[in-house]
Amino acid sequence: MANRLVIVGGGAAGMSAASAARRVDPGLQIVVLEATGHVAFGLCGIPYYLAGVVEQAEELLAYPPEFFAGHRRLDLRRRAEAVELDSARRTVHYRQHGRTHRLDYTALIVTAGGAPGVPGLPPAIPPDRVFTIRTMEDAITLRSLLDAGRVGRALVVGAGYIGLETAEAFAARGCAVTVVDLLDQVLPNLDASVAAVVEKHLREHVDLRLNTKVQEALEPAPDVVVLATGVRPAATVAALAGARTGPAGALLVDQEMRTSLPGVWAAGDCATAHHRVLGAPAFVPLGPAANRAGRVAGTVAAGGHARFDGVVGTAVVKVFDLEVARTGLTAAQAQRAGIAAHTTDVVHRSRAKYYPGSAPLHVRLVHADDGRLLGAQLVGREGAAKRVDVVAAALHAGLGVDDLAAFDLSYAPPYAPVYDPLLIAAQAAQLARATRPVAVA
Amino acid sequence: MANRLVIVGGGAAGMSAASAARRVDPGLQIVVLEATGHVAFGLCGIPYYLAGVVEQAEELLAYPPEFFAGHRRLDLRRRAEAVELDSARRTVHYRQHGRTHRLDYTALIVTAGGAPGVPGLPPAIPPDRVFTIRTMEDAITLRSLLDAGRVGRALVVGAGYIGLETAEAFAARGCAVTVVDLLDQVLPNLDASVAAVVEKHLREHVDLRLNTKVQEALEPAPDVVVLATGVRPAATVAALAGARTGPAGALLVDQEMRTSLPGVWAAGDCATAHHRVLGAPAFVPLGPAANRAGRVAGTVAAGGHARFDGVVGTAVVKVFDLEVARTGLTAAQAQRAGIAAHTTDVVHRSRAKYYPGSAPLHVRLVHADDGRLLGAQLVGREGAAKRVDVVAAALHAGLGVDDLAAFDLSYAPPYAPVYDPLLIAAQAAQLARATRPVAVA
Repeated sequence: MANRLVIVGGGAAGMSAASAARRVDPGLQIVVLEATGHVAFGLCGIPYYLAGVVEQAEELLAYPPEFFAGHRRLDLRRRAEAVELDSARRTVHYRQHGRTHRLDYTALIVTAGGAPGVPGLPPAIPPDRVFTIRTMEDAITLRSLLDAGRVGRALVVGAGYIGLETAEAFAARGCAVTVVDLLDQVLPNLDASVAAVVEKHLREHVDLRLNTKVQEALEPAPDVVVLATGVRPAATVAALAGARTGPAGALLVDQEMRTSLPGVWAAGDCATAHHRVLGAPAFVPLGPAANRAGRVAGTVAAGGHARFDGVVGTAVVKVFDLEVARTGLTAAQAQRAGIAAHTTDVVHRSRAKYYPGSAPLHVRLVHADDGRLLGAQLVGREGAAKRVDVVAAALHAGLGVDDLAAFDLSYAPPYAPVYDPLLIAAQAAQLARATRPVAVA
Repeated sequence: MANRLVIVGGGAAGMSAASAARRVDPGLQIVVLEATGHVAFGLCGIPYYLAGVVEQAEELLAYPPEFFAGHRRLDLRRRAEAVELDSARRTVHYRQHGRTHRLDYTALIVTAGGAPGVPGLPPAIPPDRVFTIRTMEDAITLRSLLDAGRVGRALVVGAGYIGLETAEAFAARGCAVTVVDLLDQVLPNLDASVAAVVEKHLREHVDLRLNTKVQEALEPAPDVVVLATGVRPAATVAALAGARTGPAGALLVDQEMRTSLPGVWAAGDCATAHHRVLGAPAFVPLGPAANRAGRVAGTVAAGGHARFDGVVGTAVVKVFDLEVARTGLTAAQAQRAGIAAHTTDVVHRSRAKYYPGSAPLHVRLVHADDGRLLGAQLVGREGAAKRVDVVAAALHAGLGVDDLAAFDLSYAPPYAPVYDPLLIAAQAAQLARATRPVAVA
């Protein structure tokens, strides 16, 4: 019998794993169990589909299912939900069409993704008007309500990345939008002072209610409610089988994406990723890491060699007219990790001062006592999204503010001032370090 | 008597030096000798002033002259051209208003900039219709001709950065534009195959004549001719005084911007800069390096401590609708430096495939036998200018294609595909390395 690789979850990580495994071993039997009706579905595109920026839901598919079944020769089983794993016997049980099936495997990869957090909702809200932004089914239903003009008022619960993208989508469709969050700031992956820049802009477009419970945000009554309160790792089946878990309950893996169970790998939102700045596993449920980690898991599980070098926590989101980018640790995250961190904030222009279209770019650098860079946050109308990658590169290499200040960054009047905002920030950080009182032991 | 610092040249490097020196030593006497009538004039802005994108020439000044004379307490002498230097006696002679003056100094910084190359022109062209893009005087005259509608046809000699920016400016003003160059490609700081992408776009807007002498491009007769055939270092006065010169005749300096003459520093387009990829001095006449090197020279000449960590050769230019960026070495430059170099070319989209506005981004990576990155070239309608800085950061740190492939770069559908074009290029370079035949010694 040929070796069989079973992949639990057909999202970005799972399909990356399947494709990588196929490249390593053309003869491998590869079964993908996907709980929903769709595989290789670009979750990140849902807000743009709702907004109508993307016309058809099918455009969000990385490839059509026929490609995977045909060209890649994958055995795709949809609406098939893994329910039990026995890693000693190398069997997995899954439910499909109301029946439970048993499947033996040689290797198994858990790529079950993230499950949306579902807060308790008041009974006043009909369940058929409550959505998450995690499945194509929800997206299609919600879009059809929007297209039919049946969403005059939308309530978005959660002011994280997905919540704000979804709020923008509703606003683009002409809905009145309320965003509610229990926390006292938007985007908890930013420091509060940087989030405040985003909040100010956000309030120009939506009714933002922070420090507020859902129950307190139901007047006026919304036509639809979208839950975007973050994801937790869908790690239960593997965890119940004995797999070790780490931050947020995500499956702990090594650099080859092996879990603690023999013959079981994991990747994507259900697994941890090595955080290079923390030097520890972290829960970072984002698309790029899912794709990369999936590819590594598939390669190794099929007998090849690969290694996931981890993340530094880079992310960017469009919030109406703002680019909001971050990498590494915020000051708050550094503090929670027990790392003494300093912050330097500057606002500098995105282009030469005489060139039209220049916009203020807010840059916060987070750096350690010894000058090592810990992170950066950038917010502005332009120039944040890809500039953050320069700091991500510096974090990857473990560089410091002196290095950043010495970077030879591109200059032309339409694209940057002669001293790029990152250089201005690094120079300010250098100055702050030079003038900082020295702690006496 | 107070110490006197004399700065020869009031451009970006000179005024950066003056400002830095003032910060170090509030009591220092600082004299700036500037050959033209303007100091701290942003040369890089001239094409945008010609195009009308920048309304007033004064907008191109970093600060008004009163700021330097007043706030910074600089003794600015305009239309004052240094003609002779005696570093043993620490005296400099300069001509102003037809008379020669002698000035003693404690320290002297040469920031005379670059002199435009002036090819022999046929006598048919009246000298008052020939311009360079190096002085405010030329810019103002040319702009007044454009404003008066007296430029129906413009000839730009030289297809480098300045030539192409100027060609775009003329086109924006409705002129018929011919660009002529002796070379067989535009932008000699790019490899020919990458330059070809720019050429194709350029030909949609101007009459481009490569492999062509000026004399062969005078039909139909132009109303104005702009010479943009590159700059040579304005190093003659210091070189005649015995200062050592390096590539292109630029003044050789150490990391503190000292020339070989005692008490004489140099910075900007007249001096070399340490090229971190080459590990050698290079002639890189660009604004950011001039500003930084000037600051270092001023700091050190005034008794402070600073060091210029050099450049990696990053540059970007807007050519009509294209962003054209480069850093490090081209394959051609690597070859000339005796470094075995490999190239990897990819074309990938600038945004998620379903997000509107995505454009193809051409990426060429240049890498060494051992995988070390040597350079990158990026061309596309969006996303080239600041993406090149990620490679510049990698070059600064001496990283390789494996590192670049592992960078955690930002992703959101409006800004990048889930695998950024730089990652796609790095993966392709890794694959090429893995499958490259091994040379047998």
